Formats: sequence, C-alpha cells, structure tokens
Amino acid sequence: MVIDLNADLGESFGIWRLGDDLALLDVVTSANVACGFHAGDPVTIRRTCAAAVDRGVAIGAQVSYRDLAGFGRRAMDVEPEELCAEVLYQLAAVDGIARAMGGRVSYVKPHGALYNRVVRDREQAAAVIDAVADYDVTLPVLTLPGSVVHEVAAAAGVPTVSEAFADRAYTPEGTLVPRGQEGAVVHDPAEVAARALEMAVKGAVTAVDGSSVPISARSICVHGDTQGAVRLAQEVRDGLLAAGVVLQAFT
Amino acid sequence: MVIDLNADLGESFGIWRLGDDLALLDVVTSANVACGFHAGDPVTIRRTCAAAVDRGVAIGAQVSYRDLAGFGRRAMDVEPEELCAEVLYQLAAVDGIARAMGGRVSYVKPHGALYNRVVRDREQAAAVIDAVADYDVTLPVLTLPGSVVHEVAAAAGVPTVSEAFADRAYTPEGTLVPRGQEGAVVHDPAEVAARALEMAVKGAVTAVDGSSVPISARSICVHGDTQGAVRLAQEVRDGLLAAGVVLQAFT
Amino acid sequence: MVIDLNADLGESFGIWRLGDDLALLDVVTSANVACGFHAGDPVTIRRTCAAAVDRGVAIGAQVSYRDLAGFGRRAMDVEPEELCAEVLYQLAAVDGIARAMGGRVSYVKPHGALYNRVVRDREQAAAVIDAVADYDVTLPVLTLPGSVVHEVAAAAGVPTVSEAFADRAYTPEGTLVPRGQEGAVVHDPAEVAARALEMAVKGAVTAVDGSSVPISARSICVHGDTQGAVRLAQEVRDGLLAAGVVLQAFT
Amino acid sequence: MVIDLNADLGESFGIWRLGDDLALLDVVTSANVACGFHAGDPVTIRRTCAAAVDRGVAIGAQVSYRDLAGFGRRAMDVEPEELCAEVLYQLAAVDGIARAMGGRVSYVKPHGALYNRVVRDREQAAAVIDAVADYDVTLPVLTLPGSVVHEVAAAAGVPTVSEAFADRAYTPEGTLVPRGQEGAVVHDPAEVAARALEMAVKGAVTAVDGSSVPISARSICVHGDTQGAVRLAQEVRDGLLAAGVVLQAFT
Repeated sequence: MVIDLNADLGESFGIWRLGDDLALLDVVTSANVACGFHAGDPVTIRRTCAAAVDRGVAIGAQVSYRDLAGFGRRAMDVEPEELCAEVLYQLAAVDGIARAMGGRVSYVKPHGALYNRVVRDREQAAAVIDAVADYDVTLPVLTLPGSVVHEVAAAAGVPTVSEAFADRAYTPEGTLVPRGQEGAVVHDPAEVAARALEMAVKGAVTAVDGSSVPISARSICVHGDTQGAVRLAQEVRDGLLAAGVVLQAFT
Repeated sequence: MVIDLNADLGESFGIWRLGDDLALLDVVTSANVACGFHAGDPVTIRRTCAAAVDRGVAIGAQVSYRDLAGFGRRAMDVEPEELCAEVLYQLAAVDGIARAMGGRVSYVKPHGALYNRVVRDREQAAAVIDAVADYDVTLPVLTLPGSVVHEVAAAAGVPTVSEAFADRAYTPEGTLVPRGQEGAVVHDPAEVAARALEMAVKGAVTAVDGSSVPISARSICVHGDTQGAVRLAQEVRDGLLAAGVVLQAFT
Repeated sequence: MVIDLNADLGESFGIWRLGDDLALLDVVTSANVACGFHAGDPVTIRRTCAAAVDRGVAIGAQVSYRDLAGFGRRAMDVEPEELCAEVLYQLAAVDGIARAMGGRVSYVKPHGALYNRVVRDREQAAAVIDAVADYDVTLPVLTLPGSVVHEVAAAAGVPTVSEAFADRAYTPEGTLVPRGQEGAVVHDPAEVAARALEMAVKGAVTAVDGSSVPISARSICVHGDTQGAVRLAQEVRDGLLAAGVVLQAFT
Repeated sequence: MVIDLNADLGESFGIWRLGDDLALLDVVTSANVACGFHAGDPVTIRRTCAAAVDRGVAIGAQVSYRDLAGFGRRAMDVEPEELCAEVLYQLAAVDGIARAMGGRVSYVKPHGALYNRVVRDREQAAAVIDAVADYDVTLPVLTLPGSVVHEVAAAAGVPTVSEAFADRAYTPEGTLVPRGQEGAVVHDPAEVAARALEMAVKGAVTAVDGSSVPISARSICVHGDTQGAVRLAQEVRDGLLAAGVVLQAFT
C-alpha cells in the first residue's frame, strides 16, 4: 500500500501569486513544477525546486503550451516539430534549475489543454514523447491510464505512471465524468479523502452508478490553488497515513 | 597562433528570420546561440544546436534580458535574484537541447545590453556569474577583457575568455571607440581581415591614433546579420587561415 | 468595374522585418495592418498607418489570436468573452494610432487561424462580430463569401465585404482548394493576373475542372511577404489597370 | 475643498488576480486602468472600464513599459520613438474599450518605473507627452508636481494634474522620502487619513522634520493591492467626506 500524491506547483508569475506552494509541499510527495510557458517565472521555478529539494519532494516538469495569457488551458494546434522542441526546452530549463538546487527533474507531466490533448491525439502525444525520449528516455510521463500518450510512450520505451483524481467522479467504464456535468467534482473533504483511500488500498473507485471500478493508479492528483484546496489535500494525506498507506514518490 | 571565431546565431523567432545561420556556421568555431529571451524559439535553438554539432562548432549560451520586443538591446534594471534565475533558466534550456542533439553548451556569452552592463555593473555581473557557478562552475564566460564581469568571475572561480572585435576601432587605451562616434566601425573587408590577423598573430590592434595597442584575445567576434556580414566574416576566416593561423574553439 | 486590392502589412516585429511594406503600399488600395497580437509592434503599426495615410490607402485592423510565436496561424480554443475583448483591444489600438496619423481604421479583417475559424465556427465568429459592433457597428468585416461570420455579421447589423484570392485554385462549388492539395496555389504571375481580371470584370473564376464559377468579390487579396510576391501583386495591379478596371478601396 | 482619489486598477492578468477592483472602485473617483503592458489583459480592461462607468469613476490610461514579467517596475532604456508609439498604442486600446463600455479615457498616468523616469528624464518624458499630444492634446497627465514631465507637457500644451501621496513621508523641500529609507511609508490608517485631510483642506503636508510644507495636489493616490490597503483607502475617503471635502474627479 504505497501511493504518491502529486500537485501543480510554482504557478505564480512575476508579481502574481497562485496557490500556497510551501503549504502544499508539506502535503505532496511529487511537485509538478510549471516551466514558464503557462506559468512560472525563473525565480519561482528556482524557489519551488529549492523548497522541494529541502523537503525531499520529487520534482516533475509540468510542460505546457506556450500560452501565458490563457494559463495553458486553451487547446492549440501546434505542429509536432514545434511542440517537441517546446517541451524539450521547458524540460531542460527546469531540470537544469532543479540540478543547480541539488535535485533533478524525475518525471514529466503535461499541463492543462496539452494534458487533455495527448490523452487522445496521437500526433501531439508523439511530439511530447519524442522530447522526453530525446532528453532522457528513462523519465516517466505521468498521465491518465489508458490514454494514447501511454501507448505512444510504451512504443518509444518511455515509462509511464498512471494517476487518479480523488475529487473527480468516475463512470462505470473508469473514465472521468466530464467537467460541466453535474456531480463531476466531489467537494466534500471527507468523501474525497475516503475515495483516495479506496484508490490506494483497494485499487478501485466507486463510480457514479455505485459500482466499484478497478483503477490502477500509482499517484493521486490533488489541487492547491485555493486555501480550501490545500486543506482538502491535507485531509487526503492524513486519511491515507492514518490507514497505514505509505506516501512515496514513484520515482 | 590559435584563435577562435565567435558569432551570434539562432536569432530568428517564429516566422521571422535573422541572419544566415548555416552560412555562418561554416565560418565560425563558436556559436553564441540565442536562448529565447531576446530571440530564438525552441525550434530554432534545436536546429541551430544540431547544425553546430554536425559541423563541430562549439555551442555557447547567449544569455540575455527578457526583452523580445527590444531584442535585448535595452538596458534594464533587473534585480540580481531575478537576473540570476533568468540566466540559469536560459543556460539550462539551451544546454539541455544541445545535449539532446549530441553536443553541449561549453561557454556563456551575455548578449546586447546585458553584455554592456556586466562590463561595468558589479551587481548584475555577480548575478550572471552566480548563475553560471550554480549551473557548472567550469563553464567559461566570454566577454571583453578588463571588464568587471571578469573580476567577479575570477573571484567566483568561473573561468573567462577574452574577445576582440576586428570591425571596431580601438582607443590607445585598448577600449572600444563608442558606437556613434565617427570611425567606430570598420567597414572595409580587407581592413577588417587585416586587423583580425594583427590580433591573432601579434596580439595587438592599431588604435585610432595609429599606435599599436596590445590586445589579448582568444576569440574574435564576427557578425552575420546581413549578407555582407557573412561575406566579411568569411574574409576574416580566409585571411587567418592563409596566414597559417589555426582556427579553434577555446573550449 | 471597380475592385479593391488588399494585403497584409505591418507584420514586422521588433528587430525582425517581414515583407516590403512600402513597395506593397504602392500596389494595394487597402492595407490589413497587423495589430500586435500575431505580429506588428507599436512603432511598426504607427509607421505603416502613416505610410498608408500618405498614399491614400485604406487601413484595416488585421485582428488575430494572441500568438506571436505562432504568427496567429495556430487554431486556438479561446473563450468568446476573451476573444471578443482581445479583438476590441486590437481594433481600438490600431484605430487610435491610425487617427493620430491622420487616418482611421475603416474595416476589420481576421488573420490566419482566426480567419479560417470564423468561416465555420459560429461562437468565435460571434465574438469577433460583437467586438466590431461594440466598437463601431458601421465597420465592415472583410472575409470569405458564404462564411458563417458573414451570417453572424448580417444578424448583428455589421456590414461585410467579400474577397477572392487570385492565386488560389477554386472548386466547381466556388470554395478554395485546400492548401496542401496539388495545384492549390497558382504561381505563374501571368495566370494570376488573368484570374484577377476575370474576377474583377466577369465576376467569375475558372475552377479546377475548367468550369466558370460565379464569384462575387469586392476585393482581391494579394500577398507581399516575399520579393516575388510583391512583383506578382504589381502584375495583378498593372493587368487590372490596363484593362480599365478602377482600383478603389471598398470603404 | 475638492479632491480626487486615484488608484491603480485592472492589474490582474489571465488567471492571476491582483487587488480588489470592485471594492476600490467604490472608494476612488479616478481609476488608473492598466493597459496590458505591465498588467491587464483585454477582458480585465473591459470589465474594469465597465465597472468604472457604472459607478461614475473617471478612467485613466495607466501606461507602462512593456514588461509583464517585471510588472513595469524595472527602469528600461527605451528609444523615444518606441516609447512614444507604445504609449500611443496603450492609450488608444484602453480608450477604445472604455468608449465601447460607454465611457472614455479622460487622463493618462504613467506607471511604475516609467512614472519615476519621466519625473527627471526629459527624453522619455517628451516621448510620453508626444504620444498624448498625438492622441488628444486635451488629455491631462497625472504625475508628481515639479517633475520634468510637467515642464515638457506645459511646453507641448498638454495639461497636467498634480498628485500627492497620503501614505508617504515628505522632505521639508516637498519631495518624497525615498522608499527604503526608514519612515518612508506611513502605515497607520488614522495618520494616513489625517495627512490626506491636511493635503485636501490646508494644501500642506507635515514633513519629516515636523515643518508644514505647502503641497498643491488636485488628486491623492491610494493603493489597493492588499485587503489592508483597500480598508486604508476607505478610511481616507471617510475622513475626507466627514470633514466636508468634496470627492470629485479632476476631469
């Protein structure tokens, strides 16, 4: 019973703050550090990496579309050569900073619209995987199980790690209920913590129809962009620890 | 009689082209690759690094202020922590891409207004040197001899390499005649080639008053942003080779 | 027999030049001035507007997605409120500069991926039209005839103007042969000039199957991003004038 | 006894929030709206202008250096032609949006490092004033009394309005005690409110040496980037109203 908790971090930019990075770093075991394309300036990246190294939290490169104004949340038709080079640039920048701080990037997680795109778009998935393979073929990519990017990674010899979302509703088929549909997001902290425990201990989640769906996840994603989110993440952590689950990065 | 020829490369951005990179890569022994802050998108960086590796040209990180609209040519009062992190980010990004292409960044050269600033501003010079030292203390910094950044680098244990400008007029004190003053730039290709030869063979340059000034430079900077510039650089190269000077990167 | 010739102008950015704006301003009757989001910095916008005013060339706001790195050529899923505000911002900026130079923006033309999107996407078309209506409901929008944005504009009381492409092949149904298909672009200057004349005089174009297709266009789009393109545009202009066609902006 | 209260507004960007704009709009009579160069995206500008129009708050264009990463707080050596065009672009963009919302820009206030620069730099001051004169020579510029930009504006026929800072210490000569010096900023709300009242009613401020210094200000600047700042601004407002001072924009 070992699980990883991952969250997006280092998403401030310039004068603007987002999330309570230090509080969240005390909760998670893996930090998806923004690389400067959707959020994260170099000072923020360096501070976040330094704080993660201090706490023994694993550092991942949270690569994204080049879209600061849209926080990387807008789908973009980027040519594969361009996307591949952009992912490589971001990965290298954050890894270099992490190394200067005494750590290193040990995994890659696509962000926002890119995350959603590579779940089903083979061309963009291949561009991301090519970048990872060019940089370091041993770096795992953290995404949704059963996604196209997992297939592409497997073919390229790039390892993958699956994650689950304790605060999202699942269909009986094991896919996420789309945001926007009623009940897509679970808000009650106790329920979220219970779901995380179910995922970690039983390898299953209760779907919207009440059935238990097997779900294989080595990591659970938590959020930290609001005060409430950090508290919820803390409850998930506390619940897991209380049940004897070992919290440990997958790297 | 060994000298290096360095030039700025990879300064295109998106749809916009600047300079004839491939032609220039056949002339120089060291390529100062733009890192994306004043010029250079990830695709351009990757292509430039790949082409440099193919030709055995050394790759340097041409770090800059974050100023795409001003091409890094506008002096900026950037806080040391910020400047240091920005230089580290750029250096890491280009080094990571260079490594993915089979090469690596083997030196650092500040660009434009930052180059001019660190010649005399101890605070910004220290920020740049801190970034280099944090990343890889063995990487040399290529700048003007006698500059403040050389002093700061020496104190930090970061090696430095001096460069000279064959197309710029020198004062009897060995400093550059400021741009804007009459005769500051030498345009005649034969004269520029002769001056480069004088620098490489005699370690001296003829100053504006006709006196010969000792100048210690392991590298000569040439330009490539126009067709004429590439031809001039080619003449400098041909003149040096014809005189038996060995062209070799300093790294 | 009156026709307008329009072209994209002011697409330089910072140090980077694109196209020969002054040469092209002597050819066209309407200038689609880039607004700073895909290309065009404020100095370029001001110079382009001043030169257009000097020559009596009509000024249009060439509004775009916010994507300098991709030159506005990458489809983006931008929320309507955001897109509307972005179009309004660009339109206002260029109109204000044009007015300061003694002219004014007299039409709007979407650029690149946004142009293609509003041909068929009702939501983004509505966002663009809302911005135009909010700013000045009398400003015509220049696009492809039969497009969704024309319908949306008509419903909002915003006038539209149709354009044709003398260097693009047409299907028998009057739509453009997609780029990428063989023969999609006509390269022979004499043929392009002849097609432009056919469009202006007969209101028709010869489709790929040899049939004559009626085409109603008040404006013909020419390109100017290469030396050859400017010469081709000049030939189109000369051919039209020689045949007695009056070249006149639609505004 | 009439005074204006001005504050910086609309300084959010994309996903990132800064300040409580709606609360502050209930306090001030003039809103310095960020124009997109140091902060403020088009959606934020439009919402801020709409809210200001709703409340009858005057709208000013808060023009800035092009420096999103540094929030316009870093001095930059921008060429006059460039700075002039950039100010014109920003002014036009926000005025156009304000007009679409039923209002208009009725004054200009430089932001951050540009504000400080034009107090003493004649070249940059002239660039800003040229832009205002080109756009609308009747628009007043809001700055520090006795500054170079006031002289330049007067010579160009551009009106100026002087502002004072209730939360800043003054020297006996009537200049601001530089930030960084002890006591430069007054934090106690009651004291700040008392100083604002002294400024509005007596046209004077108590300097650091206890002397009363005449200060001629038609507007008082308040801040709103923190919760405490909004409450402090509210106290200033309440104190002025309680003393019978009329709060009214200068436009």
